[in-house]
Amino acid sequence: MDLTPTPQDKFSFGLWTVGWEARDQFGSATRAHLDPVESVRQLAKLGAAYVTFHDNDVVPFGSDAATRDQILRRFKDVLDETGITVEMVTTDTFAHPIFKDGAFTSNDRRVRRFGLRKVVQNVDLAAEMGAETFVMWGGREGAEYDAAKDLKAAHDRYKEGIDTVAGYIKEQGYGLRIAIEPKPNEPRGDILLPTVGHALAFIAELEHGDIVGVNPETGHEQMAGLNYTSGIAQALWADKLFHIDLNGQRSIKYDQDLVFGHGDLFSAFATVDLVENGFPSGGPRYDGPRHFDYKPSRTEDADGVWESALANMRTYLILRERARAFRADPDVQEALEAAGVLELSRPTLGEGETLADLLADRSAYEDLDVDAVAARGFHFVRLNQLALEHALGAR
Amino acid sequence: MDLTPTPQDKFSFGLWTVGWEARDQFGSATRAHLDPVESVRQLAKLGAAYVTFHDNDVVPFGSDAATRDQILRRFKDVLDETGITVEMVTTDTFAHPIFKDGAFTSNDRRVRRFGLRKVVQNVDLAAEMGAETFVMWGGREGAEYDAAKDLKAAHDRYKEGIDTVAGYIKEQGYGLRIAIEPKPNEPRGDILLPTVGHALAFIAELEHGDIVGVNPETGHEQMAGLNYTSGIAQALWADKLFHIDLNGQRSIKYDQDLVFGHGDLFSAFATVDLVENGFPSGGPRYDGPRHFDYKPSRTEDADGVWESALANMRTYLILRERARAFRADPDVQEALEAAGVLELSRPTLGEGETLADLLADRSAYEDLDVDAVAARGFHFVRLNQLALEHALGAR
Amino acid sequence: MDLTPTPQDKFSFGLWTVGWEARDQFGSATRAHLDPVESVRQLAKLGAAYVTFHDNDVVPFGSDAATRDQILRRFKDVLDETGITVEMVTTDTFAHPIFKDGAFTSNDRRVRRFGLRKVVQNVDLAAEMGAETFVMWGGREGAEYDAAKDLKAAHDRYKEGIDTVAGYIKEQGYGLRIAIEPKPNEPRGDILLPTVGHALAFIAELEHGDIVGVNPETGHEQMAGLNYTSGIAQALWADKLFHIDLNGQRSIKYDQDLVFGHGDLFSAFATVDLVENGFPSGGPRYDGPRHFDYKPSRTEDADGVWESALANMRTYLILRERARAFRADPDVQEALEAAGVLELSRPTLGEGETLADLLADRSAYEDLDVDAVAARGFHFVRLNQLALEHALGAR
Amino acid sequence: MDLTPTPQDKFSFGLWTVGWEARDQFGSATRAHLDPVESVRQLAKLGAAYVTFHDNDVVPFGSDAATRDQILRRFKDVLDETGITVEMVTTDTFAHPIFKDGAFTSNDRRVRRFGLRKVVQNVDLAAEMGAETFVMWGGREGAEYDAAKDLKAAHDRYKEGIDTVAGYIKEQGYGLRIAIEPKPNEPRGDILLPTVGHALAFIAELEHGDIVGVNPETGHEQMAGLNYTSGIAQALWADKLFHIDLNGQRSIKYDQDLVFGHGDLFSAFATVDLVENGFPSGGPRYDGPRHFDYKPSRTEDADGVWESALANMRTYLILRERARAFRADPDVQEALEAAGVLELSRPTLGEGETLADLLADRSAYEDLDVDAVAARGFHFVRLNQLALEHALGAR
Repeated sequence: MDLTPTPQDKFSFGLWTVGWEARDQFGSATRAHLDPVESVRQLAKLGAAYVTFHDNDVVPFGSDAATRDQILRRFKDVLDETGITVEMVTTDTFAHPIFKDGAFTSNDRRVRRFGLRKVVQNVDLAAEMGAETFVMWGGREGAEYDAAKDLKAAHDRYKEGIDTVAGYIKEQGYGLRIAIEPKPNEPRGDILLPTVGHALAFIAELEHGDIVGVNPETGHEQMAGLNYTSGIAQALWADKLFHIDLNGQRSIKYDQDLVFGHGDLFSAFATVDLVENGFPSGGPRYDGPRHFDYKPSRTEDADGVWESALANMRTYLILRERARAFRADPDVQEALEAAGVLELSRPTLGEGETLADLLADRSAYEDLDVDAVAARGFHFVRLNQLALEHALGAR
Repeated sequence: MDLTPTPQDKFSFGLWTVGWEARDQFGSATRAHLDPVESVRQLAKLGAAYVTFHDNDVVPFGSDAATRDQILRRFKDVLDETGITVEMVTTDTFAHPIFKDGAFTSNDRRVRRFGLRKVVQNVDLAAEMGAETFVMWGGREGAEYDAAKDLKAAHDRYKEGIDTVAGYIKEQGYGLRIAIEPKPNEPRGDILLPTVGHALAFIAELEHGDIVGVNPETGHEQMAGLNYTSGIAQALWADKLFHIDLNGQRSIKYDQDLVFGHGDLFSAFATVDLVENGFPSGGPRYDGPRHFDYKPSRTEDADGVWESALANMRTYLILRERARAFRADPDVQEALEAAGVLELSRPTLGEGETLADLLADRSAYEDLDVDAVAARGFHFVRLNQLALEHALGAR
Repeated sequence: MDLTPTPQDKFSFGLWTVGWEARDQFGSATRAHLDPVESVRQLAKLGAAYVTFHDNDVVPFGSDAATRDQILRRFKDVLDETGITVEMVTTDTFAHPIFKDGAFTSNDRRVRRFGLRKVVQNVDLAAEMGAETFVMWGGREGAEYDAAKDLKAAHDRYKEGIDTVAGYIKEQGYGLRIAIEPKPNEPRGDILLPTVGHALAFIAELEHGDIVGVNPETGHEQMAGLNYTSGIAQALWADKLFHIDLNGQRSIKYDQDLVFGHGDLFSAFATVDLVENGFPSGGPRYDGPRHFDYKPSRTEDADGVWESALANMRTYLILRERARAFRADPDVQEALEAAGVLELSRPTLGEGETLADLLADRSAYEDLDVDAVAARGFHFVRLNQLALEHALGAR
Repeated sequence: MDLTPTPQDKFSFGLWTVGWEARDQFGSATRAHLDPVESVRQLAKLGAAYVTFHDNDVVPFGSDAATRDQILRRFKDVLDETGITVEMVTTDTFAHPIFKDGAFTSNDRRVRRFGLRKVVQNVDLAAEMGAETFVMWGGREGAEYDAAKDLKAAHDRYKEGIDTVAGYIKEQGYGLRIAIEPKPNEPRGDILLPTVGHALAFIAELEHGDIVGVNPETGHEQMAGLNYTSGIAQALWADKLFHIDLNGQRSIKYDQDLVFGHGDLFSAFATVDLVENGFPSGGPRYDGPRHFDYKPSRTEDADGVWESALANMRTYLILRERARAFRADPDVQEALEAAGVLELSRPTLGEGETLADLLADRSAYEDLDVDAVAARGFHFVRLNQLALEHALGAR
């Protein structure tokens, strides 16, 4: 099994991941600032295809136009040099104190206006960089206290903000789609749009929802005890899986941002299986970048940063091969059949059958041998064991 | 403060709540079967306005038509006798072994057809009983194992099922609305539509979504670590809060179904505040029954059952009075003002202002004194303390 | 890799695991009663070495002496027939309504006395069956409400109960050791001795604590978000790991009792690595049965029960081989070295060094190049990736 | 109800609480550095009795002796000026990068030696300041990855470290007791001694455990889903509750450090009830400072900091009054009686009764009317509702 990543594998990294200086809630930085230009070179060397960034990962907050231009020229040069492209851009609306109560939903209208301006400026940059996706993580949109936020007004303002940005994208003819990234909490006590579901529901209320989808992150869903694969499945079903953020999380606790697979490993197998192989009976597929949003642990030095970046890709490649073997195994096909998994795509009503027909079908209800049907064993444990043994490469 | 419930308070109880025989995962029943007719009488005596039920709370699974008719006649008699009405009906698609892999999304098509028949039959009963809401809790729709369910097909079948039922309701001209009740897990490892958000997103994909909303349960959202009040707020914002299930849960663990307020008490205050007083700046309101979906603890005898039923209502009445005083307090109004809570309803763009105007407004961005704006203190803690002292009746 | 279990692998199963009739909080039984005698035969056929049971798994609650004797004779016959032995016995002090507020700590003294009698009687049975371990899971010892339990008195009564039983074991000269099984919640809102730590701390207060240790269960620790391997490590360190209960749990939620490995797979690898290979620098080892305490999913029929039993053992055997290869890999040894893992066994003070010496050692503090030491990278991510690739059989 | 705190109320604050600059994982500081001297003055003005601190809250890491002396002189002056005393001192072994893998259990021995020196130096300072308690929070003692730590060696080194410090305290004749502060995770993935239970168990293995106890923090236990009041109860039972850290946490998530009562309010009532009123049937009491370890939210300015400090004390005072009324209410006494709460202090065996006597007592087992005893209702819900109504001041 060749575990050397290549651009064909579509791996993508946020510059803030490898560039994290390892300053956390309880301690100061353990690593020096990393020049984004160097990061791009290293990621290219490791086999990544893309990078992504927040505006302030590359251009410091408050830079004047000249500084900004100079930085961006140098950044574009390294992209040309390496062949790396920018597939996604996102905006930092959380680090500066002005955003302490959020950006689009801050209780201070001056902040909302400032935030909207910052985001729109960054849309221009994203388009200029040739990105296809514009991620919006509203990490500070929320509250610690129920009385602190008018939740009706907050959703109105959030909608106003996103619709304004989406409208601008359309108006400018940019080839960008917005992807909202949900998170349940941290740094706020409760964040608005806490899960994939809440974000999808919100998008359904937008005026320009057609170019707005989601960017689910493994750990964020797991912080709410939710199944990440189920989350991206519902997003796919709604044709709204615009981007993914892969990483690792161990149970419900603070946001760990571990390497992909270093959290719930078997769940990571299921994720790769869905991303690579699609639903068992077909349907919408995700074809975008395999984007890692993780943090090299605070115990790592510069070498450890690149070891950790590589670890994400190696794990993905291993699981990809395992997922392919899983689907190709005739025993698995037989077990899927036995478990009825493939049968679920068959509609409950027959072709042309109406509800009235079903109501008249005594074999479906009055005459059904309920106990016999109830006695059927689904053999889900056997099927799961097959999946586990494939994940482990033990078959 | 008068804590005697009256029908004007709109309290409602599921018959399965007081009727729970206290059989749990690790032990057998500690209480005898409770005749639903007796339950109705007791609840009426305690001051409730409504009851609700699953079909099999009243009519045992598999009863023949004659038995069913006789039981229902007797049940209607006690409704007439007491003045209690049935505001909601729901279907048991989880207790019988036939539903072990779900009803609408079982991998066995025979089960899906049987389940659909059972639900449609129960729609007729709901209409006959004069209910306004038809709750659907898909507690067995889900899986323990990722490989066990084709999630695309599962969402398709779920949609087919709900749309078929909703279409039937329209066709029959019933005055019923469907309310989906989300739950993250238990009894399945991962349940489909795990949160209010996922259910709202699903509804947006339905053909007959106009008569489908949600029935969020306090504990179910809290089992995912989510803020219940935020959940019902987003549902209200989407005009989809069709029903509520109030109870108590202490942190993320098994489904406790405690008395309302016996879980996260301060969060219960926020819930009552929203339900009774609406959003600070107005907007959609919930006007339906205050429905309790709880379980009298397994340690309680028959008297304890009624003590616990009363406890739900007393807690609600206390918190209702506290929430009214909270809103009426001039100090609170001043604190809401200081915290910018009331300002959030003001659009980010001014009346008639376009994004182009905002982009040209240098005061919003280029000339903004960012540090000065960032320095604003929101005094959220003071506001929260005011809420807490009102909740505690200490002001 | 031969995945056929043999008695040399020391696998053990509770009769209540395969015998679970799949009645849960929300539904009735989906499987028929399983004759314990048949279970023993099947488990023997699958390669298990031992069985374990609660008194009432074999002898129904309230059986008279004659019935009991007859049942036990038949049970011993099948043990003789199969060569299976009983390594552990435990007492059901949770299923019958009399134990609804616990046994040793029930607020009703009649229950406490009855519970003590039931346990002592079962100690005799355990001795008679040749068991080495007597597990005590106090699943009902606890409360839903803070006011419902005098926690000082509860700990006193718990101590009185365990000490009485332990004293009896000594007095009778039985070769039994007690193993307390912690659990944080479910079926009670908060259970006494909720984690391995609390149980170890409690044991330290006992009069007869020398023959009392712990029986940690994978899922129980994970229900509190705790690392199971860390839990058994602390128990080993205190020489108190008397027994283990292996199973699977996916994050913090209701007690899932999945097949071992079907929960947090990578954590299961770490568990097997510790159980099979011990601590990296040596120290106390666990040498007892590999006992599975899981539940075949409610969707399974009788065949599925045995498939699931086998799945536990196969997963264990795969991980055992992987853990051995992990330890044997020179790259891993080198990485352990680089990460300082092997260095931690070296005392902080040198041989013969006193604190006064250390205080006088300027190189340790005053003259230490703090920044240089702080700059060391531990390469933990690389080490973890090595572990992960070994777990996955990808090296 | 007078809610003005006075020194008689024994309120204590960490200087790092009000002094937190509100730099978090996702954003930079929102508040300026606060001079500890000013903090002491403000806290005195608000009615606090004590302050506590980490060495580096007052004296910056790496200060030379002259700077240190000057800072400490100024600090002692303000203590004299205000009458505030220092009841507890603790050591920062987590913020500096050198401690990124812990202090006493770092895989780097140089760090272990440095950490031990830093702690011992701080013991001298604690003694000099007249503190009674020396808290040790090993926030960085742990790991993200199972392979990264030899857990046997880690416990050995932890023991070596604590015993060395405790031995030094004894040797110097300082009137100090060590209090270990458990925490399950954050900033490490899994922290050693994750709960009150694990810390108590560890203490039982120490050589100098007689002067080592615990300092449980509300939110830390709740981050593991554990009941804080139960935790301090077990510590009291073991005579090891040396100090408490009160704050607020909303369910299982990142460490929120909210104001006391702003988390699980009803649980806070139970905590205050235990601290102020002791166990229902008497037993060991906690008589130390009521110490708050919280963080003023990042949205607060300097005024908000003091509003939040005051909020902790007001909430405590309200709940204290409510808890007293709860215990004094004859209805409550009657309900405690009915629920058997007061009966639990009665030993299971009668005075002079042996187990043999109990075994011979047919009324306890053979002749017990099991069903009658099982039928007893404990009325725990009614008792809990009484507690809730007292907490809410509604009786």
